[in-house]
Amino acid sequence: MQSNKKNQMPRVGVVGASGMVGRELVSLLERRHFPLSLLLPFASGRTRNTVKFRGRALAVTAVDLQRLAGCDLVFLVSSDEVARRLAPALARRGVWVIDDSSEFRLDPGVPLVIPEVNAEALSPTKRLIAGPNCTMTGLAVAGWPLHREATVREARIASYQAVSGAGRAALAEFFTQARRQAAGLGFGADGRAPVGRVPGHRALPRAIAGNVFPHVGRFDADGYSGEELKVAAELRKVWGAPNLRVSVTAVRVPVVRGHALSAWLNLARPLPVPRARRLLARAPGVELHAGQDYPTPLETAGLWPVHVGRVRTGVDARELALWVVSDNLLKGAALNSVQIAEQLLRRGWLKRRGG
Amino acid sequence: MQSNKKNQMPRVGVVGASGMVGRELVSLLERRHFPLSLLLPFASGRTRNTVKFRGRALAVTAVDLQRLAGCDLVFLVSSDEVARRLAPALARRGVWVIDDSSEFRLDPGVPLVIPEVNAEALSPTKRLIAGPNCTMTGLAVAGWPLHREATVREARIASYQAVSGAGRAALAEFFTQARRQAAGLGFGADGRAPVGRVPGHRALPRAIAGNVFPHVGRFDADGYSGEELKVAAELRKVWGAPNLRVSVTAVRVPVVRGHALSAWLNLARPLPVPRARRLLARAPGVELHAGQDYPTPLETAGLWPVHVGRVRTGVDARELALWVVSDNLLKGAALNSVQIAEQLLRRGWLKRRGG
Repeated sequence: MQSNKKNQMPRVGVVGASGMVGRELVSLLERRHFPLSLLLPFASGRTRNTVKFRGRALAVTAVDLQRLAGCDLVFLVSSDEVARRLAPALARRGVWVIDDSSEFRLDPGVPLVIPEVNAEALSPTKRLIAGPNCTMTGLAVAGWPLHREATVREARIASYQAVSGAGRAALAEFFTQARRQAAGLGFGADGRAPVGRVPGHRALPRAIAGNVFPHVGRFDADGYSGEELKVAAELRKVWGAPNLRVSVTAVRVPVVRGHALSAWLNLARPLPVPRARRLLARAPGVELHAGQDYPTPLETAGLWPVHVGRVRTGVDARELALWVVSDNLLKGAALNSVQIAEQLLRRGWLKRRGG
Repeated sequence: MQSNKKNQMPRVGVVGASGMVGRELVSLLERRHFPLSLLLPFASGRTRNTVKFRGRALAVTAVDLQRLAGCDLVFLVSSDEVARRLAPALARRGVWVIDDSSEFRLDPGVPLVIPEVNAEALSPTKRLIAGPNCTMTGLAVAGWPLHREATVREARIASYQAVSGAGRAALAEFFTQARRQAAGLGFGADGRAPVGRVPGHRALPRAIAGNVFPHVGRFDADGYSGEELKVAAELRKVWGAPNLRVSVTAVRVPVVRGHALSAWLNLARPLPVPRARRLLARAPGVELHAGQDYPTPLETAGLWPVHVGRVRTGVDARELALWVVSDNLLKGAALNSVQIAEQLLRRGWLKRRGG
């Protein structure tokens, strides 16, 4: 690559670069050959570390607004609080900001984008762009061709969510519990946990090894959890379907990575299964499993597409049931953010600014 | 207890006594003080073993039709094939037979009974009685007071099913995989399973440690699994609701015991959540969790009631969503069978016969 061409390439910052999603994002920028002249990794917290990029170990430094403002694109893969502090300030200075937190997703002035679904929501003047919740992404992608064809009016979704979606401390807690469980502490061969032997937990609301619990985020007065409300609201926004009725049960399961969903989509018009399968087979970002095959989180972890199987009729001919699995750290987070940036490049909007 | 009174008590056989459900059943007969003069444990396969009962180790012997025919009540907690071979033959000889296999559940001449729901299906002349599928039992019990009040017209159910429901070989396979997983084989700290390192499996259709899969029983031409079809058909029969529309996704999860369900019940009439909670609070066999509390399989394993939480409105005012957990080996199998026998006793139908 010629040096003067390289100097025309954007400078890219990543805030939260040493987190689980951040590391995936840096790796994706390399593997997808994202054109950039400079990569600046920042840690939002006190973590100081390095990330590998194109054969080099880059030091992860503390967040520095001035250095971030010198970037042409900043990925925020950090907390709502960090997004609140940095995203509008950077966007005002002309930096493209792709934020993976939930802070701005429902802001009417902020596009919430899944490129396979609503890339047209991107605009050259809206520099702050939100990426969606990791649980809804799989269904948003897989359900989109069905929604366009037959109009989804009601969606019921039960999730099987991996522990990595709850962050590193939760994952460490899971591993500790799983080691105890495997060592035979707390579980008899008959599967009974002796009283008082249910493993301790702190990062997660209940023990997760050998368990499942329907508690992801805080419950509201109506009994829905934060995660469940995010899935519903974000699905309506990404699909542009404000009247879509959605009910979700978000459940944590002892899986390391990969969120699975059992979904029922009730349609305005009947959509026969063979026709639905043909639509899914050619939908961008979807890998449809053949016949009676189906994806599982363990087998699809680390893969890019949204995996779909078990497409069948639901309670009547106007309903489809399906099973969707996608990697929560990739399509649910890092990959979607990189795909948004690729859209900006393709449109010629993401350029190296002067100075 | 007087000896002559004891001699009036029924003689009870258990086929499959050394299996997981069989051991629970024998333990329940003791813990619930089931009146019996003789307990005869049989193994349906080649397993020879002992079971503990009232302080004694009883030898589990090979199935012997003559000895079984001398019982007043026989519990079958074995395979469909064993049930086919034994159940009608014993019932014809006047033995009460409570069969936990799926063989006779949908036979119009055989009562399929969950005592909290349809004890009135029992009849003094129908000596062969079926117990239901372990996955549908929790919903059948928890949904019953709601169905009676507001008529469930559609049920959508996503299950989170424990490995013990697949039998002992599956559980052993799960433990082996879990030990490998805990030892760090096959799973990096980033949660990525190196290619080719997905654990092997034989008893189950996919690896289950660190995984979930929507495959319980064989798939039919419409894409539903055997388990899913059982849940639907048995729910219709137990509730006496032949027109109920049911769609199920049955999913195996890495839990030792306890099946959880996320269910949406669409009703003929609106049923406000507070009213639904009052109905559930007084429903027999149901333990309703208060406020935002919810049951988990690990915490309720070994307990008798069906545990219910997260009662909330579904996609509209005519729908309720709920989270149900019950022990698949107990209420899903052994406990329900013992409760059926207790009903027969209470009605005075189960008596010691002459000879």
